[in-house]
Amino acid sequence: MAEASGSLRIIPVRGIPLVREGDDLAPLILAALERQGTPLSNGAVLVVAQKIVSKAEGRRVALTAVTPGARALTLAAETHKDSRFVQVVLDESSEVVRTGHDVLIVESRQGFICANAGVDHTNAGASEEDLTLLPRDADASAAALRARLRELRGVEAAVIISDTHGRAFRLGAVGVAIGVAGMAALRDLRGQKDLFGHTFRVTTVAVADELASAATLVMGEAAEGVPAALIEGLAVAGDASGQESGARALLRPRELDLFR
Amino acid sequence: MAEASGSLRIIPVRGIPLVREGDDLAPLILAALERQGTPLSNGAVLVVAQKIVSKAEGRRVALTAVTPGARALTLAAETHKDSRFVQVVLDESSEVVRTGHDVLIVESRQGFICANAGVDHTNAGASEEDLTLLPRDADASAAALRARLRELRGVEAAVIISDTHGRAFRLGAVGVAIGVAGMAALRDLRGQKDLFGHTFRVTTVAVADELASAATLVMGEAAEGVPAALIEGLAVAGDASGQESGARALLRPRELDLFR
Repeated sequence: MAEASGSLRIIPVRGIPLVREGDDLAPLILAALERQGTPLSNGAVLVVAQKIVSKAEGRRVALTAVTPGARALTLAAETHKDSRFVQVVLDESSEVVRTGHDVLIVESRQGFICANAGVDHTNAGASEEDLTLLPRDADASAAALRARLRELRGVEAAVIISDTHGRAFRLGAVGVAIGVAGMAALRDLRGQKDLFGHTFRVTTVAVADELASAATLVMGEAAEGVPAALIEGLAVAGDASGQESGARALLRPRELDLFR
Repeated sequence: MAEASGSLRIIPVRGIPLVREGDDLAPLILAALERQGTPLSNGAVLVVAQKIVSKAEGRRVALTAVTPGARALTLAAETHKDSRFVQVVLDESSEVVRTGHDVLIVESRQGFICANAGVDHTNAGASEEDLTLLPRDADASAAALRARLRELRGVEAAVIISDTHGRAFRLGAVGVAIGVAGMAALRDLRGQKDLFGHTFRVTTVAVADELASAATLVMGEAAEGVPAALIEGLAVAGDASGQESGARALLRPRELDLFR
């Protein structure tokens, strides 16, 4: 097929082995990329699912080791969830934003408004009783992975740690960025003019979230478990242009949020 | 470059001429695709920016022809917007959801929670006084375009009409689907098991929104104005599997929305 100018390629990274605590993700991902003939190149964006980052960082809790407090017991009754699970969610949260039947929406310690602070039963390990937590600081995780990729291959790539979030107003989860390194998470269009010289209705674009969504299309949540994707062809990759602020640039300040 | 299995290609469609009311979009897009050597193929997803669909459908209002009513005058004072603009937004809305300084968030007649009901100054034409409105029924627009593509080239493609929406909790706009035809907008994972046999935390994925976000990465909002993108390699394209329900499948019912 012809390669039209300005095209992006979204490439699933297959064959990454099951990740365990303490694993160094960079060589596992680089080897998988090289085996499938799509080595990491300068300017590429590597999107990595939060799950394997959390596993490598040992962000895991055994449910059996948790004793729920009073607040967890109350919220568990309200949301019809396991009170030990709720306790872990509270430990990972700075604020409870909304509750409902089987719904517990919080602000995570990193500032993301999401269900259950990203605490997850799935794929944690062989035991149903294991929970995975989000990376403690996904921007730091992304920066460390990016530095390690540079160290091992001399390549300047951007790294996004992705998660899958539900949304207000719209059904269905989408991939979002919770950690970003090596590129600006937001692209600022303010001051730019359109075809007719008007200024833009939309002034900033959450490029890192759009990349995470694009990657999620090939990563899926399914049994085959593709935990990373490579995106090639994006002009902004590697262009941090003084905006090296990570995914925290995507957090809407409370005073600018009409829906808190 | 090697073509890894399961990769997606996101291809900007360049060279579409400025669209006018009454234009038949399908041949304009097909010709542009063919000129750049990336003809439309079976199973591809064509993402088209709302702007050119609205223009072709003549969804345009001259501000000078609008007389604001009492409610528009009140809301205009509250939001610091032109009262005629606010009147047009109200005409396109079923409900005002939130207001703030320079912010007017409504439910559009199609059911999308978005700023200004998608009413837009930009790119409407030579005069600053022109507004473009969203397509009256973007699912119908998508279905009509898909049928026309089939008629002209015998190709079964999916069509997404995209817009760019701001979000609660997160800064920056992202591409979303407001019209979908030829594929399911939501992918349902309920009942599927992950690597360890657990059921999924995330049960539905808004694939059409993720595709719109991916397309927005190459379409941009910038002066060069790329109003469409072609996505190749997605397994779900063309597989409507009885879920031919359009983008309205993405609307969260009010009773399931904790943030209305």
